[in-house]
Amino acid sequence: MERSIRNEIVRLFVENPEGFLSGEEISRRVGCSRAAVWKQIEELRKQGYEIEAKPRQGYRLKYRPDRVAPEEIYPHLKTERLGCEIRYVESTPSTQNIAHQWAKDGAPEGAVVIAEEQVNGRGRMGKTWHSPPRTGIWMSLILRPPISLAEASQLTLLASVGVQEAISKETNLPTKIKWPNDILVQGKKVCGILTEIRGEQDRIHYVIMGIGMNVNTEAKDFPEELANVGTSLAMETGRKIHRASLVAVLLKELEQYYLLYLQQGFTPIRKKWEEKAGMLGQVITARSTQSTITGLAEHLNEQGALLIRTSSGVVPVYSAEIEWQ
Amino acid sequence: MERSIRNEIVRLFVENPEGFLSGEEISRRVGCSRAAVWKQIEELRKQGYEIEAKPRQGYRLKYRPDRVAPEEIYPHLKTERLGCEIRYVESTPSTQNIAHQWAKDGAPEGAVVIAEEQVNGRGRMGKTWHSPPRTGIWMSLILRPPISLAEASQLTLLASVGVQEAISKETNLPTKIKWPNDILVQGKKVCGILTEIRGEQDRIHYVIMGIGMNVNTEAKDFPEELANVGTSLAMETGRKIHRASLVAVLLKELEQYYLLYLQQGFTPIRKKWEEKAGMLGQVITARSTQSTITGLAEHLNEQGALLIRTSSGVVPVYSAEIEWQ
Repeated sequence: MERSIRNEIVRLFVENPEGFLSGEEISRRVGCSRAAVWKQIEELRKQGYEIEAKPRQGYRLKYRPDRVAPEEIYPHLKTERLGCEIRYVESTPSTQNIAHQWAKDGAPEGAVVIAEEQVNGRGRMGKTWHSPPRTGIWMSLILRPPISLAEASQLTLLASVGVQEAISKETNLPTKIKWPNDILVQGKKVCGILTEIRGEQDRIHYVIMGIGMNVNTEAKDFPEELANVGTSLAMETGRKIHRASLVAVLLKELEQYYLLYLQQGFTPIRKKWEEKAGMLGQVITARSTQSTITGLAEHLNEQGALLIRTSSGVVPVYSAEIEWQ
Repeated sequence: MERSIRNEIVRLFVENPEGFLSGEEISRRVGCSRAAVWKQIEELRKQGYEIEAKPRQGYRLKYRPDRVAPEEIYPHLKTERLGCEIRYVESTPSTQNIAHQWAKDGAPEGAVVIAEEQVNGRGRMGKTWHSPPRTGIWMSLILRPPISLAEASQLTLLASVGVQEAISKETNLPTKIKWPNDILVQGKKVCGILTEIRGEQDRIHYVIMGIGMNVNTEAKDFPEELANVGTSLAMETGRKIHRASLVAVLLKELEQYYLLYLQQGFTPIRKKWEEKAGMLGQVITARSTQSTITGLAEHLNEQGALLIRTSSGVVPVYSAEIEWQ
């Protein structure tokens, strides 16, 4: 309840960027006491918001810190299901871990865990994901789609398409998808997706869709080994981006594709993905622990496997590291 | 250590069903002190073993209770990996839950959880599995195969083949497989398999293969709603079966098929499955939450989906309840 009052107060300030709002008006529009308004304004000040107070005029938001807290996301969020509940933490080993526990405890579909910093962020195949404080979107989304495990890898591809669409809307940057789970700008990684699943053979209990996006990361924030392979939206556009609005856009795009998927299955997602992939029609090399396959990347099959044409026929690849020129 | 001394003492008794074993001989062959032998014999007596002790002759096992404890399983077990560690509990809500936690805590591949009773045993699709005390095999096996999620449902089919083989070796009963996870005798369910998975899109963290087998269950043990659909090995053969030896046979068969799968992939498993399935070549109805499909069950595809030929083409079914005449 306190949280939702705070959300509403920030929403009012965001919708009235110039003028003053009286304590009475805020309490009336939010539907709470003036004491509650005052308490939440004190709380916001502690979080770094600068709120001017003038006698007989009321309150005015002068400075809004860059946070991905729910009160910053909700004024921008236009979804029905995704983001229905948001757990926000300053710092955590990994938002995936919090989301797993929450999902087991009965989190609703669409629940989101988001952090300002991950100190032990996880990437695909047990790799780490560099997640320095207040520079990116480090979030985990809980989904409960009525699909089988054999179809689960389709969700990573769905997420790729949603991420790409959100980046395009927010920045106009051209992006490419690197199968299975990376989004590239100018050939460098700007976002990775880690879809973790718990389920039985023909039923998913829950999916944790982890998204790590470098938003306001600066070149100096990247460790040396990532300097040539990673980039951020700010580095590519030359401007800072309001992360909380981008989270809202991202959740909206993901929701649209997710609802389409639930209604019409994987086919429309696959088509969209194939339009945007960076490597179809090219000769690629797919390395896995078991084998290395070089051939022409043709398209995706209905399970989301990448089909590679080799001299000995078309091979479906379910898991590999991809390289291409 | 105490556990392994006890395992070895039971093994000696089992290998010498008639004669007496002196305390000195036991201590020499097990490699422990005579005090340790005495302590473990007292422990076994508490568990219901009747051990005769005669001056100058030693000990003799007169009665061996029907338990699926490690000391009962190990004398019969001839595997390399499966059953490498066994956690045994008298009663638990579900062996699957214990196995999930153990897998997260780093259990080795092949580790087994087994219980005399489950009070909240789980079946497929959120159903319960009736697991009354000391009547069946209620066990969960932890595996860590290097496969993708899209391939995970193959493991249920692999388990079906292993279970079938074990039942055949132990009882000679004719069995049929009902896709995806049941083993039938005379059209009634004698065993169910619940494969639960945790992983990311292209990597499995671990698999919990749950096996529930009605072994010495009597007609009176079945609740009314299961009376017409369930049976047990004892009801079908007319004799009691030593459950611990059956566990050992089962782990051996599962290991053989699992090693074959790791070496040669799903193809040999699929062929074996197709030989044994009860419904291929018949008209079946597959009901899922989304649809009902009626057609000719043709075979399995390489992901383990059941291919059904309908008037509008061949449909792969990943998840459904199957009915046939």
